[in-house]
Amino acid sequence: VSDKTLAELGESESLQRTIGRLTTSESVLIGPGDDAAVINLSENRFVVTTDSMIEDHDFKLNWSSGFDLGYKAVATNLADVAAMGAKPVALVVSLAVPKQTRISWLEAFADGLSQALTELAPTASVVGGDLASSEKVFISVTAHGDLEGRAPVLRSGAKVGDLLAVGGTLGKAAAGLALLTEGGSAAEAFDDLVSFQLRPRPPIELGVVAANNGATAMLDISDSLVKDASRIAEQSKVCLSINSSDLLGFQAVLEQAAQRLNQPALDWVLFGGEDHGLLATFPSLELVPKGFKVIGKVIAKKDHFVELDGQAIDPRGWDSVTG
Amino acid sequence: VSDKTLAELGESESLQRTIGRLTTSESVLIGPGDDAAVINLSENRFVVTTDSMIEDHDFKLNWSSGFDLGYKAVATNLADVAAMGAKPVALVVSLAVPKQTRISWLEAFADGLSQALTELAPTASVVGGDLASSEKVFISVTAHGDLEGRAPVLRSGAKVGDLLAVGGTLGKAAAGLALLTEGGSAAEAFDDLVSFQLRPRPPIELGVVAANNGATAMLDISDSLVKDASRIAEQSKVCLSINSSDLLGFQAVLEQAAQRLNQPALDWVLFGGEDHGLLATFPSLELVPKGFKVIGKVIAKKDHFVELDGQAIDPRGWDSVTG
Repeated sequence: VSDKTLAELGESESLQRTIGRLTTSESVLIGPGDDAAVINLSENRFVVTTDSMIEDHDFKLNWSSGFDLGYKAVATNLADVAAMGAKPVALVVSLAVPKQTRISWLEAFADGLSQALTELAPTASVVGGDLASSEKVFISVTAHGDLEGRAPVLRSGAKVGDLLAVGGTLGKAAAGLALLTEGGSAAEAFDDLVSFQLRPRPPIELGVVAANNGATAMLDISDSLVKDASRIAEQSKVCLSINSSDLLGFQAVLEQAAQRLNQPALDWVLFGGEDHGLLATFPSLELVPKGFKVIGKVIAKKDHFVELDGQAIDPRGWDSVTG
Repeated sequence: VSDKTLAELGESESLQRTIGRLTTSESVLIGPGDDAAVINLSENRFVVTTDSMIEDHDFKLNWSSGFDLGYKAVATNLADVAAMGAKPVALVVSLAVPKQTRISWLEAFADGLSQALTELAPTASVVGGDLASSEKVFISVTAHGDLEGRAPVLRSGAKVGDLLAVGGTLGKAAAGLALLTEGGSAAEAFDDLVSFQLRPRPPIELGVVAANNGATAMLDISDSLVKDASRIAEQSKVCLSINSSDLLGFQAVLEQAAQRLNQPALDWVLFGGEDHGLLATFPSLELVPKGFKVIGKVIAKKDHFVELDGQAIDPRGWDSVTG
């Protein structure tokens, strides 16, 4: 079987081969193939977010397969939709790759998009895309959600007295990155952590659950627990107080890898991003949904945004420009 | 006044400086700054399209300013929304630029986005974005529209007996590209044509007008008149017959530049893309709106998709991968 390149097949044929591997969900009235797609909602508002990934800045091709990148591009964008309390309905994908890229790589990328949707948000589908050639791989995804009548959960709604809780994992993707950087047998020994870096699995369904339970503020942790917590604190004009004892469970699963690399597991939990778990505040313990773990509480505004065991802690994390 | 680079300011500050130059329109319930934006519609469907532009593939930085690129990225995506018969409401913009890019370039880019919206679709605004660093400039825009209860106008609805009409210009952007390629005094002498290549001005408002008048098929001419006409023909299972005499007006305004470059003006009209005018079919002459020019008619399916004065004409045009 011949595995032609993008240059040999051209844009239209390559796009068809890629798009053809995707299925559309119920909410798609007009799918790919016209000037634009038309999406159905349960109400007259929609949620929209965009994020891009660039070769050698956000990923390396010798670490990530086409499948991994398709999966990750979908997962990270779905997390932003979920963090608004919305149900994902549709995505559009812009992809640029070198002309000599094999069609099999594009097909694997499409399969990664598809697999992420199947696993994380079966109500959503890819409804459009753009394929172009470039020296480096560039991926840009825009994702859309349906609030189904709910109020969007913003970053600015946290109230003093609320509980702070995390849905999903903390530090696994950062541990995976450290293992990939180390390489060799370390990466092989902890391939479950590596897979969280390459194919993060945010708890998308918890976004709607949190909104239904009255979450007062929510975002997805893309940069780091402390940096993203400071965003809620800043926009809500409060301080977030985290208890280190509540992070022990997150640390425990990283401990063996941390010892292998001689790095502190707590740093991955506090300052590692890319798990794309949900960080939310709830008015009371009864309202914290199953799947969320309470890690602290909302206290009155201070000079700092976040504290750990009562001590100010500086936001650190990933800046997509300066690294 | 210091003009810092992206690397010096970092992502957040640079994004704020850029986003801060944009205003939001009425339909924006939640704008930039949270995980996602929330957009209001008049009904429970939305239209979505995406398109990207890559340095040295789709543009050259020594031809296009930051302002030009912002303007063009908006204009081309709005044309796809208009071609569905929808009113543009919101856009998200992903931009990647080299770290050493000056903030003044980013500000000019934002001003270009803003100016295009003001001129072409004042009902729409930029509601989110992503800024990253890369070796080459990469721009990806996703645009959204409101059908306001209208049926979307697809490529597949042209009927035998319909009239074929163009809204907007033909060949000006192609002439502009030829002039830029020639350079020097030729480009200076015809700067109005050059400006159509750098800042295309599609007749966005005509999309809704055409839909309201019962257009049976519509798309925006991005690749070339003949290539895009063949798309309507293929999807509608008809043949489109164009009269060269109806193209004379489009040719006439290009004639001086064509003579200067010793190139045939008709080639720019037939095979040049990027004006992003609207190509639509209407059931009768009375229904063809002001602003559209009839150039032919829909006839029964043949072995070819498009003919000029009764002779088959081969689709040629731009392929974003193979060029």
